Amino acid sequence: MDVNIILFPDFETLDVFGPVEMLGHLEEYHLNFLSIKGGLIKSRQNLEVMTKPIDTKNYSGILVLPGGQGTRTLVEDLGFIELIKQLAQASDYCLTVCTGSALLARTNLLNGRKATSNKKAFAWVESVNPQVKWVSAARWVVDGIYYTSSGVSAGMDMTLGFIADRFGTGKARAIADSTEYQWSEDKDKDPFSKNNENSNKTPVKSV
Amino acid sequence: MDVNIILFPDFETLDVFGPVEMLGHLEEYHLNFLSIKGGLIKSRQNLEVMTKPIDTKNYSGILVLPGGQGTRTLVEDLGFIELIKQLAQASDYCLTVCTGSALLARTNLLNGRKATSNKKAFAWVESVNPQVKWVSAARWVVDGIYYTSSGVSAGMDMTLGFIADRFGTGKARAIADSTEYQWSEDKDKDPFSKNNENSNKTPVKSV
Repeated sequence: MDVNIILFPDFETLDVFGPVEMLGHLEEYHLNFLSIKGGLIKSRQNLEVMTKPIDTKNYSGILVLPGGQGTRTLVEDLGFIELIKQLAQASDYCLTVCTGSALLARTNLLNGRKATSNKKAFAWVESVNPQVKWVSAARWVVDGIYYTSSGVSAGMDMTLGFIADRFGTGKARAIADSTEYQWSEDKDKDPFSKNNENSNKTPVKSV
Repeated sequence: MDVNIILFPDFETLDVFGPVEMLGHLEEYHLNFLSIKGGLIKSRQNLEVMTKPIDTKNYSGILVLPGGQGTRTLVEDLGFIELIKQLAQASDYCLTVCTGSALLARTNLLNGRKATSNKKAFAWVESVNPQVKWVSAARWVVDGIYYTSSGVSAGMDMTLGFIADRFGTGKARAIADSTEYQWSEDKDKDPFSKNNENSNKTPVKSV
């Protein structure tokens, strides 16, 4: 099965490469790094990653949408949002990390569904689409084919949760053990929900 | 200050981009992705990253050596090891993640010093240079300018420890909070040391 990771300028590095590390341990998955036009895409942390152009005709599998500063302008790019909507509709599963859920929310596919996001950016994400049932305290949320995680590092916990749902908890724990990752297995336990109440008062950096 | 991250074929993705995420939050640091010849370098997880060639004439700052399957052959590449030795000697600090400590150990710069590595690959790393005081239970180890971490995810804990040593624990905690990372602050607490005893009995994968 294809794992299609959508990159864009100013994506947050660990939003992508935490999940990639975990998914890369599964021989069943083939990882594709994609962007609208292909070529090199630079992350918020000045990393340049090679991507292939998105092939909408032969698209299937697992969509991964990271967050980062780049999402702030992309939610207003209706051409990009329409493309994301097409990709999500053609996917078996859709995983978002951090403010990647704002991109997915903008497609209206999450309307009436539960979802979460980075807690320091929560007020902004809520404002993108108030018709989503935003969960203010969750490490990650599952609703149908949609997995949405809290900020940056929560993407690793969600991805292991996704792997547990597909391949069993034992497989997820084995990958966590192999990568010496202390997996937070409880998706409802969110030590960073405390950051949410200040989300509209303090400036958000690097998310 | 320059942060010089040395990439090579089959490096482990999160070994690099966990620390990069944390270091990227510091305006004092400039991140450089380097390889011997420059150009695209592919990780174990099929990620292609753009690198610049290493400039040994104007080299200084913080050296970061990731681990991964690629280290298995590189420890026998004495030209590469001599280059790593020159870079480490010209650096203010040297950080290794996972089996990256095997590369540094091969330079003999760690002889008589304490260091650690991935626990599932520990027997192999010890065999690369038994003159290092290998610590079998540590999330990360500090000895002089050398910071060595345990496997993959431990690189994030070590990097936050490095940031705490340079900028204070408050700064490190703020970065952990911003990235919603549950930092293991105690470098001597190692939940994965249990994996060590089997290191010479079970095949090692993806480290």
